[in-house]
Amino acid sequence: MKLKLVAVLLASAIAMPAHADVLVDNVSGITIDADGKVKRFEALVIDDDGKVAQLIERGQERPRTDYLEDAGGKVMLPGFIDAHGHVSSVGFNAMTLDLSGTNSLEEALEAIRVFAAENEARPWILGRGWNQEKWGLGRFPTAAELDSVVSDRPVWLNRVDGHAGWGNSLALRAAGIDAKTVSPAGGRIEKLADGKTPSGVFVDMAMGLVEKVVPAPRPVERDLALAEAQKVLHAQGITAMADMGTTIEDWQSFRRAGDNGTLTLRIMSYAAGPDQMVLLGGSGPSPWLYDDKLRMNGVKLYLDGALGSRGAWLKEPYADDPHNTGLPLTPPAALRNILVRAAQGGFQPAIHAIGTAANAEALNAIGEIAESFDGDRRWRIEHVQIVDPADLPKLAEHGIISSMQPVHQTSDMFMAEARLGPDRLGGAYAWNTILEMGGRLAFGSDAPVESADPFAGLAASITRSNAAGEPFGGWRPQERVNREQALAGFTSEAAFAGFAEGRFGRLIPGERADFVLVDVDPLMATPDEIRATRVHETWVGGQKVYDAD
Amino acid sequence: MKLKLVAVLLASAIAMPAHADVLVDNVSGITIDADGKVKRFEALVIDDDGKVAQLIERGQERPRTDYLEDAGGKVMLPGFIDAHGHVSSVGFNAMTLDLSGTNSLEEALEAIRVFAAENEARPWILGRGWNQEKWGLGRFPTAAELDSVVSDRPVWLNRVDGHAGWGNSLALRAAGIDAKTVSPAGGRIEKLADGKTPSGVFVDMAMGLVEKVVPAPRPVERDLALAEAQKVLHAQGITAMADMGTTIEDWQSFRRAGDNGTLTLRIMSYAAGPDQMVLLGGSGPSPWLYDDKLRMNGVKLYLDGALGSRGAWLKEPYADDPHNTGLPLTPPAALRNILVRAAQGGFQPAIHAIGTAANAEALNAIGEIAESFDGDRRWRIEHVQIVDPADLPKLAEHGIISSMQPVHQTSDMFMAEARLGPDRLGGAYAWNTILEMGGRLAFGSDAPVESADPFAGLAASITRSNAAGEPFGGWRPQERVNREQALAGFTSEAAFAGFAEGRFGRLIPGERADFVLVDVDPLMATPDEIRATRVHETWVGGQKVYDAD
Repeated sequence: MKLKLVAVLLASAIAMPAHADVLVDNVSGITIDADGKVKRFEALVIDDDGKVAQLIERGQERPRTDYLEDAGGKVMLPGFIDAHGHVSSVGFNAMTLDLSGTNSLEEALEAIRVFAAENEARPWILGRGWNQEKWGLGRFPTAAELDSVVSDRPVWLNRVDGHAGWGNSLALRAAGIDAKTVSPAGGRIEKLADGKTPSGVFVDMAMGLVEKVVPAPRPVERDLALAEAQKVLHAQGITAMADMGTTIEDWQSFRRAGDNGTLTLRIMSYAAGPDQMVLLGGSGPSPWLYDDKLRMNGVKLYLDGALGSRGAWLKEPYADDPHNTGLPLTPPAALRNILVRAAQGGFQPAIHAIGTAANAEALNAIGEIAESFDGDRRWRIEHVQIVDPADLPKLAEHGIISSMQPVHQTSDMFMAEARLGPDRLGGAYAWNTILEMGGRLAFGSDAPVESADPFAGLAASITRSNAAGEPFGGWRPQERVNREQALAGFTSEAAFAGFAEGRFGRLIPGERADFVLVDVDPLMATPDEIRATRVHETWVGGQKVYDAD
Repeated sequence: MKLKLVAVLLASAIAMPAHADVLVDNVSGITIDADGKVKRFEALVIDDDGKVAQLIERGQERPRTDYLEDAGGKVMLPGFIDAHGHVSSVGFNAMTLDLSGTNSLEEALEAIRVFAAENEARPWILGRGWNQEKWGLGRFPTAAELDSVVSDRPVWLNRVDGHAGWGNSLALRAAGIDAKTVSPAGGRIEKLADGKTPSGVFVDMAMGLVEKVVPAPRPVERDLALAEAQKVLHAQGITAMADMGTTIEDWQSFRRAGDNGTLTLRIMSYAAGPDQMVLLGGSGPSPWLYDDKLRMNGVKLYLDGALGSRGAWLKEPYADDPHNTGLPLTPPAALRNILVRAAQGGFQPAIHAIGTAANAEALNAIGEIAESFDGDRRWRIEHVQIVDPADLPKLAEHGIISSMQPVHQTSDMFMAEARLGPDRLGGAYAWNTILEMGGRLAFGSDAPVESADPFAGLAASITRSNAAGEPFGGWRPQERVNREQALAGFTSEAAFAGFAEGRFGRLIPGERADFVLVDVDPLMATPDEIRATRVHETWVGGQKVYDAD
């Protein structure tokens, strides 16, 4: 894509401003419009603040601008907004061993051996992405298996869902774990067949036993991770993310990037619990900072764990573990106390709820509290994966936003059937029902738990099938959304879920000129074509932040 | 002072800019100039960035500007910079009981009784400023004495120097203090005559035993305290302060004010120890933020306590306590380790050293480390109160800055004689010797330990006498500085000590237009007149932030 200079005399006569009016012409432009409907256009004008000045439709006259970009007929979409991700973790993930592509324990062990050999200077070998289900192992892996490939340094590897960790013997020794160590509340130390010896795998709150001895990243590593996250996300067409569980260290890193002018990703921050909420925000959310690049919106709370590790909190026991109903993580009184404190400060709560009991608890707590607080609160429930059908109508009350991750459905569907049995899935990933009942959906990825790729999310949301096309016709296909709803979920609705409407998320005059140029029209293409979309360029606030060439 | 509108047509034809060119005319202007010498002027032009555009000398033509302010012949000085203060504490101080004006234990107890009655809603009664020396008590006060006026709530009162605290019985009970409680390292629990029962007074690190149970201020209280501090300081003519011991909670409050546009005080921040240094700054100092209103410069370290509580670390025992050499607070290896870590990150260390041993240790450590680090480091020693004369020449090495508080000298002089005896004062508050040997002085107040009033500081620094004129002719008068040196210490040199030269501290073109309009010329007036100076207006960045009318 070539930059053509218009009005050369003017430009050479005065100092070049940081921004100038730019006409991006010759696009096949698509956006959700102010009325919530899809709008198509042929060109877009960016003003000198990096905002959309004008959309130009077919046959409409082009205005004179300082610069002209010819997009060569590419598809222009609003920059994608990931309504649920973990910014720093995306970056650290890119810097650590990734086991998500491994298909067997043997393959994983070999990858670990190679990574350790290639990173001799690192005192700990850290990684993530393992999944004993995908390996077909039928059990968790063990510390001894890890020892067989790395015995000179501690190794600590997160499960793909972030709800379990796997350490070698040196990691367990560093953490002082032995047969006498007791599982903490909300967590479980897995044991070997003898029922006593720790196996090396730690579920949910038990992960902290080892994590507390892993050396904390230094600020320079955090700043690298943020830069890496921005690179990874922009390359996938993402221009904004809701950061779920921001710590003060994350926040300081975001601010350093903002202060230094290197923040290109828009971050809507949800603090990691009530103490961090107060530390990050003070007595209320921050203002929008750095030209709408950063805002501390609210607080992330956890009501349960995840399905894969059987930490999701269910009303009835797991079908494949009849004495287990999961791990409730926040007692009822504490939840209500935190929600009231948050609401009093104007902080937006974002409540992680995966299982039926957790979702019921979130809905009940919001129902009890919402009446006491005026105004536009946008109570968020994160994941909303398995809801008791009897509770679904409550998702349309009190302005609740269901923040969901389409790819979780296609990754988890078979596991969900195993965990719950076929008869308890009536409210599983119930996107269409939520919309039909009048609820609001915001879409995200939970990156780095899943890839942040929004095109995989779009394809999953309109098909309920995975990349292999399975199951044919889609899993519980009545819960598909249409293409316009899918696009809105990843753009305008994800912005609304973070109080960002009017600032970004749509290509309409006055909002920030955040867009991508791609080779596929997601409203017309096949699901396979959507999955194969190539992102050519990503722009944030009228500035190019990614160019595939 | 009246604002006159010039170029009315222009102003009414276009929207008013946030700033516009302003001519402040008819002043008796004084500044330290670029060459370090005093310069006088009659008018000053502020540009639309709030910086000094031009100084106009006698008889020089005035340029045309958008606005004209006639200062009515008042004295214009650069805004005062306090090189050592505690911003949040100045604010909290203004919000809590102040006992610094009390002249006897009885008077103090009555003030406490009245304050508690007037503040029934407060769960703790907090205050500061008591001084048993001033009361002529000859001993510390006791918990039982406090109980006699407040027995329904805990009471906790800081000594005037911040190095001791006095609690009532409920405060001791809340902290779980009894006869079996052991004094922590670096601290001392005072005892009653039986040698066992805690008296109610806690020195230095022992203060933490009670402070840890005092409810922490909420963000809204922190933000109020900052607003209060700005009000108090601007009313005294102060436009910038080095904040000594910034915590993350302080920092977040400063940033909230910056983000919301309510930060009017320029703050040079020194983090409260190495952990906060990394949390606040990351891998190095912050940029200058909010138009030079805030920068995280470095780290504050403590080598000892204070003279009043006999916490200052001396080479020889106290003259009035022959078994005590004070409380060294940072072991030698830890000090060197922290200094190296700070220097590696480009953080500026500011080392609190009051006694002869502490100053020797600071100088030795800097001497050992400075050679390994290139560049302009500006190692700061804070207070530099009692230096062994043999060590004085080292204060002129390695670009060390002696950050000193003139009023401490006049407050402490008789106490210092008692603590050290008359023969060990050769290097006490040795301002002139430090300058003559080639060292650099920055002046401050240690507010709220002392009043921030810079005119009291100017008067003390040129007289070595207190407000009562005692001792006649000055205490060790050979250590007076001249008026120009005094003004520089509170303006240009205090800016240099915080890497702010070229940004603020002088009224020269390109620096921020921070100034005060007062009724006294401190280069001409008597010390009494200087002490009685009235601040009419205070301006920061070309904006009026205080007006006495």
